[in-house]
Amino acid sequence: MTSSLPDTPAPVLLLVPGAAGAPSDGTAPFHLADPTAPQLKVTDLVVTRGDGIFETVGVFDGTPVNVGPHLDRLARSAFLLELPAPHRETLVAAIDAAIEAHTDVAELSVRIMYTRGLEGAGAPTCWIHARTADDWTAYRSGIRVVTLDRGLSTTVPETSPWLLPGAKTLSYAVNMAAGREAKRRGAADCLFVATDGYVLEGPTSTLLVRQGDTFTTTPVSAGVLPGTCVNTLFADLQRAGHQVREHLMTVADVAGSDGAWLLSSTRLAAPISQLDDTDLPVDLELTKRFEALLTGKA
Amino acid sequence: MTSSLPDTPAPVLLLVPGAAGAPSDGTAPFHLADPTAPQLKVTDLVVTRGDGIFETVGVFDGTPVNVGPHLDRLARSAFLLELPAPHRETLVAAIDAAIEAHTDVAELSVRIMYTRGLEGAGAPTCWIHARTADDWTAYRSGIRVVTLDRGLSTTVPETSPWLLPGAKTLSYAVNMAAGREAKRRGAADCLFVATDGYVLEGPTSTLLVRQGDTFTTTPVSAGVLPGTCVNTLFADLQRAGHQVREHLMTVADVAGSDGAWLLSSTRLAAPISQLDDTDLPVDLELTKRFEALLTGKA
Repeated sequence: MTSSLPDTPAPVLLLVPGAAGAPSDGTAPFHLADPTAPQLKVTDLVVTRGDGIFETVGVFDGTPVNVGPHLDRLARSAFLLELPAPHRETLVAAIDAAIEAHTDVAELSVRIMYTRGLEGAGAPTCWIHARTADDWTAYRSGIRVVTLDRGLSTTVPETSPWLLPGAKTLSYAVNMAAGREAKRRGAADCLFVATDGYVLEGPTSTLLVRQGDTFTTTPVSAGVLPGTCVNTLFADLQRAGHQVREHLMTVADVAGSDGAWLLSSTRLAAPISQLDDTDLPVDLELTKRFEALLTGKA
Repeated sequence: MTSSLPDTPAPVLLLVPGAAGAPSDGTAPFHLADPTAPQLKVTDLVVTRGDGIFETVGVFDGTPVNVGPHLDRLARSAFLLELPAPHRETLVAAIDAAIEAHTDVAELSVRIMYTRGLEGAGAPTCWIHARTADDWTAYRSGIRVVTLDRGLSTTVPETSPWLLPGAKTLSYAVNMAAGREAKRRGAADCLFVATDGYVLEGPTSTLLVRQGDTFTTTPVSAGVLPGTCVNTLFADLQRAGHQVREHLMTVADVAGSDGAWLLSSTRLAAPISQLDDTDLPVDLELTKRFEALLTGKA
């Protein structure tokens, strides 16, 4: 872990009691706290039930990228989990304050965590944790990815919303187990596949696929998270005259494509160099363009 | 919440640094802690990823029930999540110490929580939280239950173990969402149904069904938790000359049965009086017998 190196700047922790609106007792909506001290009670529902949501914002040379889309998605996750709506202005200010309080570093990872709160209290717990990002340089030059069954159909959002498809929850044990399975298979990451044969997303990333002049991602209606990165790239690709779309794709579509990437706010655009046992073309120039866009430098 | 009533005894919190074996620094394997103070760091993987497992032991008039089977299941969950094996003797002693430290009450709920620990640390976090149980008396006299799609097939344990079927994880956001959906439909609880049409379990309970002289529960191989309560009841039913079995059942099987229950260590045996729109016979005498067995009084 980068954060355990002695020369890594200390992380910053901001507690945000005003995350769902002004605290009733008149205290400040957020304040710095000691990240090395325990801050959470054992009866917080995020601890007892994984009952919460989150976002991770990438900050590059001090500039946070896609804060608006991340907060849009946090609000959407809150809606899907029937949590109180997050107070947007408070979170924007708190994210800025966390970045301001952190030592300047090239890449900062800012997690916004929002839980159902203490059992019986009925008010969310929220904090922001800013820390030096791990080094993903190798990941960004090409990765082997394996496909793994997600067990669910792409029709689940329509039929069974209580399965919380498309919500970025803190119940990520399956996502973590899938990551371990990928590593066991000698891959850096995995791509989830629905039971009806369509590719979905990575456990912590969005899929982007190139077929000739067309760039495609999985439709949100299939139960994936609305990607923040993919929208940034789509806007730029459209300006450059490419076609962009949300469309269901099979594993064969991806394996036979002209390039594919897993996108994330901190790992950025990771080209898939091999999907299961099929080599895929890697366009490092286009990947560099994506990286510039996703770090706010293009 | 019972715990917020002023005359409810204070909960007891025991931190268990020796949960995976003796702590390397020679400290005691467990110690009492202040349950009203924050005890967890924001970088514990149970908080950032829901990456942990748990058990809830019911304690009736001071006697914990099924501690062995609960610890067996905790060990199984740890294996499925690739967590270090819990140290059984330490946990047995810690459970006893938590019960001992709590004011005598008729029904105590003892949660054993076991997480992947702090990011980068590689050692589990464990604590035991003992508190007066909520009042489930009404629940135990008959409940309306609705069936809800679980989105997964009963073949998932065979094909896709990374989906963690049968592990009692702290990633329970879907279980909680299903509970809310059940309440929205005017039911007290729900029964999950697999995509291949077989009934599974409740979000926090095991299914038991009576058909004549035969009592049936869902096979563990279908992806449900191995129930601790159902084994207690099976042993007694067998002694009384009934047939008991693990067997796949459809919704129609349950709706047409001679009685069905949702079993849990704290709610005990809740007879299903209505499944979706079908009334089911409720045998209160047998339910009382189950209650006596599950509280260690038979």
